[in-house]
Amino acid sequence: MIRIGVVGYGYWGPNLVRNFSDVPGGQVAAVADMSADRRALAERRHPSITTTPDAADLIRDPRIDAIAIATPVSTHFELAMQALAAGKHVWVEKPLAMNTSQAARLVDQADRCGRTLIVDHTFAYTPAVRKIRELIDADALGRLYYYDSVRVNLGLFQRDVDVIWDLAVHDLAIIDRILPERPIAVSATGMAHVPGKPENIAYLTLFFPSSLIAHIHVNWLAPLKVRRALIGGSRKMIVYDDVETSEKVKVYDKGLTVKDDAQDIYQMLVGYRSGDMWAPQLEVTEALNTEARHSIDCIERGTAPLTDGRAGLRVVQILEAASRSMRERGRTIELEAGQCAA
Amino acid sequence: MIRIGVVGYGYWGPNLVRNFSDVPGGQVAAVADMSADRRALAERRHPSITTTPDAADLIRDPRIDAIAIATPVSTHFELAMQALAAGKHVWVEKPLAMNTSQAARLVDQADRCGRTLIVDHTFAYTPAVRKIRELIDADALGRLYYYDSVRVNLGLFQRDVDVIWDLAVHDLAIIDRILPERPIAVSATGMAHVPGKPENIAYLTLFFPSSLIAHIHVNWLAPLKVRRALIGGSRKMIVYDDVETSEKVKVYDKGLTVKDDAQDIYQMLVGYRSGDMWAPQLEVTEALNTEARHSIDCIERGTAPLTDGRAGLRVVQILEAASRSMRERGRTIELEAGQCAA
Amino acid sequence: MIRIGVVGYGYWGPNLVRNFSDVPGGQVAAVADMSADRRALAERRHPSITTTPDAADLIRDPRIDAIAIATPVSTHFELAMQALAAGKHVWVEKPLAMNTSQAARLVDQADRCGRTLIVDHTFAYTPAVRKIRELIDADALGRLYYYDSVRVNLGLFQRDVDVIWDLAVHDLAIIDRILPERPIAVSATGMAHVPGKPENIAYLTLFFPSSLIAHIHVNWLAPLKVRRALIGGSRKMIVYDDVETSEKVKVYDKGLTVKDDAQDIYQMLVGYRSGDMWAPQLEVTEALNTEARHSIDCIERGTAPLTDGRAGLRVVQILEAASRSMRERGRTIELEAGQCAA
Amino acid sequence: MIRIGVVGYGYWGPNLVRNFSDVPGGQVAAVADMSADRRALAERRHPSITTTPDAADLIRDPRIDAIAIATPVSTHFELAMQALAAGKHVWVEKPLAMNTSQAARLVDQADRCGRTLIVDHTFAYTPAVRKIRELIDADALGRLYYYDSVRVNLGLFQRDVDVIWDLAVHDLAIIDRILPERPIAVSATGMAHVPGKPENIAYLTLFFPSSLIAHIHVNWLAPLKVRRALIGGSRKMIVYDDVETSEKVKVYDKGLTVKDDAQDIYQMLVGYRSGDMWAPQLEVTEALNTEARHSIDCIERGTAPLTDGRAGLRVVQILEAASRSMRERGRTIELEAGQCAA
Repeated sequence: MIRIGVVGYGYWGPNLVRNFSDVPGGQVAAVADMSADRRALAERRHPSITTTPDAADLIRDPRIDAIAIATPVSTHFELAMQALAAGKHVWVEKPLAMNTSQAARLVDQADRCGRTLIVDHTFAYTPAVRKIRELIDADALGRLYYYDSVRVNLGLFQRDVDVIWDLAVHDLAIIDRILPERPIAVSATGMAHVPGKPENIAYLTLFFPSSLIAHIHVNWLAPLKVRRALIGGSRKMIVYDDVETSEKVKVYDKGLTVKDDAQDIYQMLVGYRSGDMWAPQLEVTEALNTEARHSIDCIERGTAPLTDGRAGLRVVQILEAASRSMRERGRTIELEAGQCAA
Repeated sequence: MIRIGVVGYGYWGPNLVRNFSDVPGGQVAAVADMSADRRALAERRHPSITTTPDAADLIRDPRIDAIAIATPVSTHFELAMQALAAGKHVWVEKPLAMNTSQAARLVDQADRCGRTLIVDHTFAYTPAVRKIRELIDADALGRLYYYDSVRVNLGLFQRDVDVIWDLAVHDLAIIDRILPERPIAVSATGMAHVPGKPENIAYLTLFFPSSLIAHIHVNWLAPLKVRRALIGGSRKMIVYDDVETSEKVKVYDKGLTVKDDAQDIYQMLVGYRSGDMWAPQLEVTEALNTEARHSIDCIERGTAPLTDGRAGLRVVQILEAASRSMRERGRTIELEAGQCAA
Repeated sequence: MIRIGVVGYGYWGPNLVRNFSDVPGGQVAAVADMSADRRALAERRHPSITTTPDAADLIRDPRIDAIAIATPVSTHFELAMQALAAGKHVWVEKPLAMNTSQAARLVDQADRCGRTLIVDHTFAYTPAVRKIRELIDADALGRLYYYDSVRVNLGLFQRDVDVIWDLAVHDLAIIDRILPERPIAVSATGMAHVPGKPENIAYLTLFFPSSLIAHIHVNWLAPLKVRRALIGGSRKMIVYDDVETSEKVKVYDKGLTVKDDAQDIYQMLVGYRSGDMWAPQLEVTEALNTEARHSIDCIERGTAPLTDGRAGLRVVQILEAASRSMRERGRTIELEAGQCAA
Repeated sequence: MIRIGVVGYGYWGPNLVRNFSDVPGGQVAAVADMSADRRALAERRHPSITTTPDAADLIRDPRIDAIAIATPVSTHFELAMQALAAGKHVWVEKPLAMNTSQAARLVDQADRCGRTLIVDHTFAYTPAVRKIRELIDADALGRLYYYDSVRVNLGLFQRDVDVIWDLAVHDLAIIDRILPERPIAVSATGMAHVPGKPENIAYLTLFFPSSLIAHIHVNWLAPLKVRRALIGGSRKMIVYDDVETSEKVKVYDKGLTVKDDAQDIYQMLVGYRSGDMWAPQLEVTEALNTEARHSIDCIERGTAPLTDGRAGLRVVQILEAASRSMRERGRTIELEAGQCAA
């Protein structure tokens, strides 16, 4: 039985408590939140769980095996370092930390302490992303051309991060999980529309060693909620629409073809092929539940999580480079491979 | 009565013939196309229209007042220059020419010859774009934040231009028509997936003097046809979905607001406001018909068209800069205002 | 403080417990369910709530003020009668009972005992239905022409009722709440596709004193989930799409008009008018939460609920007539107004 | 070469002229329309085609082989009878005639005269309906449960027919083409909302010898255009959405299954199975073009058309019964099989 202390009972914390409580080998023992209102809510919903205003109470509690952190990003590093130092396993909401240096130190600390560090790349555990990875692994798409995501909605401005860190992080986590190559450079543009506040709209392009290209489009001020990625390959193309309630993943048998019509001065010899569409049935499971089970399992067995600290570090490295590129109006920033433990 | 000679009876030419034939003051007198098959088709559909394989026949025909050019982009400049020199009014399919220098020379030539030069920025004449312009002119949206367009589909590769020149040109024409500012710089990324062929996927960011930002997302290898622009302002936001058969323009009463909740450590004071949505009834007219009427009218009265050579030049200038930026992985290219007659 | 005992912790029961727990003046004191598994689940989620396999324990418990019944329909009557007899207020999941006679007896019993009887016509409490009622009350639609609903999905067959009692009941409850007239006759058709099981597809037409007509289309074997009602009036028309996550209610400024074109032999003088569309912002509240608050409030003040026993009786009367009509291949069944307390 | 005279150049006539002109073996020789405006339009578009105000001119013209009739329904019988009597082959827009008796007489007349009688059940020739027929013929759906269509929009009232004859006729033609059984009875309801005008909203249920059931839902006063049929079988289910521009036909691997869970008192042993979805690629052809080719081919070879007079008669028989049932508020009308030549 892994006993978990959850730090932060804001938007995401209640989902953590619910899901870690549902996993057979897990148990949520305590919740820390600075807000008395949030603690009262936690107590009302879960009378058997202890609450405290101070995360340090959980970190030093010897009956607690793991700390799950769901606080603002700026606090992740401090809390996670202390928890690892105290011998706890650590689960951190995305993104892992505020910058590459912090993220790298967390990975090192976890290694040194021999504790499991899990970063909450939730989408990696969704049935849709797992199915897409399975298709790519089986080479169903052929040579990969692009990953192209639109992730926009009318959302609350985050206190301590720009829209890239809040939303693009999801696509970077998906890309880290499903694509067979790692990005080598990033160019980003964006804009802040509220004086003194971070960028609320941004566009990221990721370059890869091959002709694969990824683009991520995020916006906190969109009138619609869109969560749609197109993934194009030489043989098949995928539409992954996370707003759909069914058929989230559609596989199109479409692609390039060659037309041998030299007479046609208007179009080139490259045409396209259009075939059937297929939407595989997906499992009906809550990603956070799958993730919680996997996390407990990795902690118990001492195995590496799918979304470990290294994955968290890779994503933070790109986030950092993207924010920098954005502030320089799209200047390409090379991603240093050496920096990242693969 | 303005007698028109149409050069090029490929994909777009038949629409020109049909629409210029429907305008009261216009008459299509002749069609030129190098292909015997295309000429046969034109003759079958319009027995009263003369055809010829040689555009020069139309340009030197004294009974013809105006030349409409619907040929591959690489031929626009030559044909238009000759036609203007021969004293014809000229209507050119978008984009106006292959580069800024050609476009500027066409504008000069038209000025010198005192002839009307119209560039076929068709979208400028759609009921949807006209309604959006009307809303922006009436300041219904408040301060403009962004224009953000996705224009992708599985399309034929063009013989002589990349996807920016084929698809992004539409958004640049719309932006030129509806936004109150002109872009000052562009950053673009993209990729060619077929060896030896032009880029088939591209992303453009346009910067403006204010915090307004525009982004255009084009792709010839997408499994879906998407034609959707989001236009965000401080007071209202628009979704313009050209694939919809009704309610193409939706106006959302959504925007920023300030929440005074210093207790909330998770989100900032900037929140959002969400109100009603409204879809104005649009006229049911074919854009090309409106454009043909306007063109005939401008030729007859000698007035400047909404989409004149200068608009065509401004758009070509951005296309050229965007293609250059794309080949340099997103390097920002400044747009020289002096080059453009406003 | 109203103390509630919930009978039945299957699909709907957990939602009841959660929502009645959230209402300030309410408290869920105990849950009864025959299944040990379901009781264990309730205990795990709500350690402070007592559980029992026997509903009778709740009914005779003097500390319990109200019984909420979320068991199969066939048990509603027995449980509700006993609870009312024991002096409890009663809240019953829809439909109120298995037939008109049972429903009428429950209404009488509640009257005699002076206890509040609430039927769970959940949709009556949704922001969408409340907005539609408001629009109809304000005469925004003009003369009402039709209510036309499609409510289909791939659903579990119910043990004791046909698809009319399972799904059409929602539309009948909505109709009862929003339309200014009561139906006077019903014609229904349908079919059972599994031998020995109830009808799984059905179509109901309701006739009203005026030319208003209602149609309800329900199906347990549909490949898609559709929840869409069209409501047509002489001035405006509504599309209510409950599957949409935003803009659930759209109001179309469309209607009839007269064309004075006697020359047109193809169409009649009656044409149509098409104007703007408007989607009012809806409150973001969970219907069951609103309903729970209203229920507690009615119990405390002794006022009549919006969805009282009489509403439940009216709906059951139509359900009964519809099932009968369906078994006679659409024969019109008159609804006896006398039977229904208005 | 089959020379065709087209009677009626209103809404549909121009499409006939265009498509019959495009078929290699066909030629439109003349058009008759009472309106001088419509004749002028025809002449303008097709200078080589003769026009006349009087259909009789075409019928007695010895150079004309076939008469295509696209006039109001009330005139079909007279025109078609005269044309057949004059030795012409006849093509009639749907529905074939105003009543069963007229339709039967047309079938007889064509037989007696040895001429081809084709009824314009256009949908039978669409790629979507042809694919659905192919799937049903190959038994891909298993036992058929239902055909369920919604066909509504804001449409012009027809001068001489109710909404059943205008819109439901399409579904009856599709049903006639794709289903392996013929309907044996019909129950319909509906309403007229404009005094003195025909019914503008109607619901038809068709009963078949097996448990197959069909329902057709038509409305001239709907705010949306919906063209969607669900076709359910024991093995697979189809969604046919004609408003979609791609994936018009989706095949769902969904169906019934048996759950062996006697403990579950809430649901029955019948559950469902949900698998992949598949959208077959459809040909991109205009139905009327396919139909025109097939018609010319049948006339030339003397073979029976897919949508011959007998198909037209079967559909008219159901239309007639449905209108009668509707006026009797849903009374089931038996369809006499003997009346219909199979």
